[in-house]
Amino acid sequence: MDVVEFSPRPEQYAWTFGGAEPIRRVTPGTLMKLWTEDAFGGRLQSASDKPSEKLDMREVNPQTGPFYVEGAEPGDTLAIHFVDLQPARDWAASATIPFFGGLTGTDRTAMLHEPLPELTWIYQLDRERQVVVFEAQRSDMRLELPVEPMLGTVGVAPAGREVRTSLVPDMFGGNMDTPEMRAGATCYLGVNVEGALFSVGDGHYRQGEGESCGTAVEGAMNVTLIVELIKGHAPVWPRIEQDGHYAVVGSSRPLEDAWRASQVGMITWLGELYGLDRLDAYQLLTQISESPLANVVDANYSAVTKVAKKLLPARDAYDGMHRYLRQQAAHALTY
Amino acid sequence: MDVVEFSPRPEQYAWTFGGAEPIRRVTPGTLMKLWTEDAFGGRLQSASDKPSEKLDMREVNPQTGPFYVEGAEPGDTLAIHFVDLQPARDWAASATIPFFGGLTGTDRTAMLHEPLPELTWIYQLDRERQVVVFEAQRSDMRLELPVEPMLGTVGVAPAGREVRTSLVPDMFGGNMDTPEMRAGATCYLGVNVEGALFSVGDGHYRQGEGESCGTAVEGAMNVTLIVELIKGHAPVWPRIEQDGHYAVVGSSRPLEDAWRASQVGMITWLGELYGLDRLDAYQLLTQISESPLANVVDANYSAVTKVAKKLLPARDAYDGMHRYLRQQAAHALTY
Amino acid sequence: MDVVEFSPRPEQYAWTFGGAEPIRRVTPGTLMKLWTEDAFGGRLQSASDKPSEKLDMREVNPQTGPFYVEGAEPGDTLAIHFVDLQPARDWAASATIPFFGGLTGTDRTAMLHEPLPELTWIYQLDRERQVVVFEAQRSDMRLELPVEPMLGTVGVAPAGREVRTSLVPDMFGGNMDTPEMRAGATCYLGVNVEGALFSVGDGHYRQGEGESCGTAVEGAMNVTLIVELIKGHAPVWPRIEQDGHYAVVGSSRPLEDAWRASQVGMITWLGELYGLDRLDAYQLLTQISESPLANVVDANYSAVTKVAKKLLPARDAYDGMHRYLRQQAAHALTY
Amino acid sequence: MDVVEFSPRPEQYAWTFGGAEPIRRVTPGTLMKLWTEDAFGGRLQSASDKPSEKLDMREVNPQTGPFYVEGAEPGDTLAIHFVDLQPARDWAASATIPFFGGLTGTDRTAMLHEPLPELTWIYQLDRERQVVVFEAQRSDMRLELPVEPMLGTVGVAPAGREVRTSLVPDMFGGNMDTPEMRAGATCYLGVNVEGALFSVGDGHYRQGEGESCGTAVEGAMNVTLIVELIKGHAPVWPRIEQDGHYAVVGSSRPLEDAWRASQVGMITWLGELYGLDRLDAYQLLTQISESPLANVVDANYSAVTKVAKKLLPARDAYDGMHRYLRQQAAHALTY
Repeated sequence: MDVVEFSPRPEQYAWTFGGAEPIRRVTPGTLMKLWTEDAFGGRLQSASDKPSEKLDMREVNPQTGPFYVEGAEPGDTLAIHFVDLQPARDWAASATIPFFGGLTGTDRTAMLHEPLPELTWIYQLDRERQVVVFEAQRSDMRLELPVEPMLGTVGVAPAGREVRTSLVPDMFGGNMDTPEMRAGATCYLGVNVEGALFSVGDGHYRQGEGESCGTAVEGAMNVTLIVELIKGHAPVWPRIEQDGHYAVVGSSRPLEDAWRASQVGMITWLGELYGLDRLDAYQLLTQISESPLANVVDANYSAVTKVAKKLLPARDAYDGMHRYLRQQAAHALTY
Repeated sequence: MDVVEFSPRPEQYAWTFGGAEPIRRVTPGTLMKLWTEDAFGGRLQSASDKPSEKLDMREVNPQTGPFYVEGAEPGDTLAIHFVDLQPARDWAASATIPFFGGLTGTDRTAMLHEPLPELTWIYQLDRERQVVVFEAQRSDMRLELPVEPMLGTVGVAPAGREVRTSLVPDMFGGNMDTPEMRAGATCYLGVNVEGALFSVGDGHYRQGEGESCGTAVEGAMNVTLIVELIKGHAPVWPRIEQDGHYAVVGSSRPLEDAWRASQVGMITWLGELYGLDRLDAYQLLTQISESPLANVVDANYSAVTKVAKKLLPARDAYDGMHRYLRQQAAHALTY
Repeated sequence: MDVVEFSPRPEQYAWTFGGAEPIRRVTPGTLMKLWTEDAFGGRLQSASDKPSEKLDMREVNPQTGPFYVEGAEPGDTLAIHFVDLQPARDWAASATIPFFGGLTGTDRTAMLHEPLPELTWIYQLDRERQVVVFEAQRSDMRLELPVEPMLGTVGVAPAGREVRTSLVPDMFGGNMDTPEMRAGATCYLGVNVEGALFSVGDGHYRQGEGESCGTAVEGAMNVTLIVELIKGHAPVWPRIEQDGHYAVVGSSRPLEDAWRASQVGMITWLGELYGLDRLDAYQLLTQISESPLANVVDANYSAVTKVAKKLLPARDAYDGMHRYLRQQAAHALTY
Repeated sequence: MDVVEFSPRPEQYAWTFGGAEPIRRVTPGTLMKLWTEDAFGGRLQSASDKPSEKLDMREVNPQTGPFYVEGAEPGDTLAIHFVDLQPARDWAASATIPFFGGLTGTDRTAMLHEPLPELTWIYQLDRERQVVVFEAQRSDMRLELPVEPMLGTVGVAPAGREVRTSLVPDMFGGNMDTPEMRAGATCYLGVNVEGALFSVGDGHYRQGEGESCGTAVEGAMNVTLIVELIKGHAPVWPRIEQDGHYAVVGSSRPLEDAWRASQVGMITWLGELYGLDRLDAYQLLTQISESPLANVVDANYSAVTKVAKKLLPARDAYDGMHRYLRQQAAHALTY
């Protein structure tokens, strides 16, 4: 198994999906050991750091990548399996950013209110107990919360010659901000350009569904992944496979459209797996869907449609790619 | 403990929240053993029954009730604890109804498409194995799915003199269609009129989150509940307490507004329980929220914000009402 | 021509569409001379009157009516022609109401902001010059604006046993808040209950499209109208005919759904008038539609689709009802 | 006055805002005589041409440009004044494209319907009578409609390193598809990159508000414009000044957010012009706003907020730039 290790210097960060030169070329099957900076570029370090003073909103979610995958062509499917996600620092940060978030007026949900107060919360990480510590800023609470590492952004270059900022989720993946993107998951993305040009970033030590204030427990992450290539079979919307679930992520506005996209995406997948007619799949999904939200704050909102494998007859999606990658991962971890 | 048993005759069904005369008066603390007809009024009985021929969409979701709760006044809080939900028939039905559902044009998401094909699926119930059986209509699949009984509609009379059909969810509860409304849950609803006038109906033997085709596994239900009254403290949006979770249900359009309402509702609840400042609660909720959708098909869409109690310091919401009702329920079940 | 004059006493106001006893019975063809109180119930009289102190939001938009129209049955069409709208006072009021309006968080677009400042603007009316005077409250501007009287609410009792507050627009008409509802216009509404039970209110001395702050130049109005009955032919959504335009009003959320409803409503109307296939009507409407918004603030948003008659071959909608009512109106005004 | 004439060869078309090399450099004040191909790349020429066979949806709205404006820097304001728009062909085309449009399921408003029928309508232009002729395809109607030329796309390179397809409207302008973009109008766009890199295209011989089927009367256009540069003062959203109106275009989803953006944009502009406090401007705009929709079909929807100058005290926006450009245009036309 090829192994690539890469930790970008700040001047190597990518800030977009598409539009950046590949930082490395990798062959399918490569095990990659990557480091990702946090969404704030590491600039929020104490509770007194104000986002409006420390951040440039055009440079958030620094990406590690993009990586050119040998042989990847438009119409192919990239399979990115997350072997391991480990916090790379002993602290993480979250903040309310003026006019950003789900429960505030924004540049698009434009209102006449003053911005909400800017606050920064620093979470200390206790590695032994695998918790981060929430400390209330304007009231009295200290609370340990389990670490549940995930990646906010996983994406490839968009179709149609587009270049999108690393704040945006869409058909190319991107800033989906879903807790489903965790170690043990395989993400399937349709390839739009030669080499796919995928990148990852925006590690969260934990995040609730919806990410309402707009920022999770943001922290630098050591990311171990395996990248594989499936010829053809590009899904319209990103798919995620876990040991226990199939999931599809839709990203759009209003939120019902994000959800609709994820539902139709899952109906399509159920059709592929079981030969189900679309109306039968619609009926079945109605009774078994899990519909956890991902984010309701980004340039597009993201909604997830999940189904539990245990409710369904066993099938090997993509010829068993996920199982294969789990084996490869187990193999890699025993090195 | 007072016990009331009631099974409505068809001419006794209520079709609205508000606007119907109370069918019974009950005192707080009463154990109620009710029967509810299915959403279709029992009219879909075989796969050849077409919704457009069998149903009158002005008469769906027949309600058992409304019940006048002695002493309930506007501003009070009704606590309805579901002791037990048991399928009352050995089969249930689901269907695609023309221009109704989440992945079709509707009367409001008006489009120029022909309606999707009308199909009815009948699910046989196996009580012993506690499964219902999905049988594909236009393809080849037969699948046993666990029975997970829930109620689609739980509501009181609306505020502002309004009368709403039993198809609508809103601040008064109603057709929220959330799988969270199951045995063991306590639903808190703000009282808008003297006597509260609550009713229940629309039993589902199981339902996925979002209820995409618009109809769950719809079946008649034997409902055992305890109704209690809390003076004052009316929440703006319906709250649900389970042994493991607090939940708030928001209902509106677009879907992000339903979600926003549920999030702000939970921030308010966390403030009540922990004295948390609203921005601290916003931050905390961002990291711990579960956001499963309820329905994306009704006149309003419904979104749920849940938090796991195990992540939080122990508290007794409403002075321990849920625990008290669990005890009463255990007591009642041992009769 | 029968003539009915009616000016309600405060205890006679209706606050809902549906649910109120008819205040008068009228025969089709009756000329009605009505007085309507302003949306605030006349309670905002000076710039120092605060909405939160003076208003009860459950009692706004007092309705004059409802009127029982003899012979009206479900499925029929009520034609209400506005002969004349005259300001009944020499002043009018507008205000920012906490958490109400298009550019503020609301109970549904729930956010964590403090409410915008509460302000009341009083507009003096100059009858001779037919202007109202805008006087800025927190800056320096005094501006005369033409009086363009219109009615915010025109509605019948809803279908499906519902009762809706006079703040809501929907298929039954109601609080559509469109400047198209002016003298010279005929409003066609589908009848849902025996007698139709229509009412009017919420006079505006003028209003912009969208009614962004939530309140127009609100003033008591002398309303002269003729009510007629067309057997059958109930439109799904309210239609308005003017000398120069056909219009359809859709009301829903999100705003694109309100617009879709109005567009499909117009495609249907063009089909009725010209025998146009729906796709041809879709194409034609694409090139000739005017799409002014009505309100983006109420419980449902309202969007208007208009087409100019001058672009189309002459037709007599509803057998020339509008022309006939214009003649009747001219006749009535010459008494 | 510098004069630049440019008519791109097909291989010179730009398909994006941002990301393309400038095709010419121009100095502020230049009069430009441009030719733009139609949205379909000229590929729909008869009623039998099917969009799905003739079009590649990744290559629609070919842009003439981009042009590098000397001296333009981020934060500046580009003023593009349309001197004249003349149909460059004697026919134009419109079509229903599968899963594209306002009254059909789309890739985002994902549904399970089959696509609507694909139809193409060819409009013949009668230059003398200045009409285009609508001919129904599946029913019987032939209708002459006035030519009212406009440009669907006017845009600069986006901020944040982004590249967007020419199908998208946003803060950078782009595919706004508003009939307000006509001869006599000046469009003000904030500059995001050195040289601004503006382009134009997507001529419509006429279009209704909302552009419901997704395609207007699409035709090649001879475009005469003057480009000017204002240092600083970049507006957040595109502004349009006509002799009679100020307008702001907001583009987002859901449609209420597009409208909110345009309303807040106009409140800001009124503040700049009159020193109005934001709440006073909110109140004033509520009573004078015109709110015609632009498109409800593109990747973002676009809504326009307009105010009539005749209702307001006279002011010279941008130091009278529009008036100056009108004079320059008159001068140019008399050559």
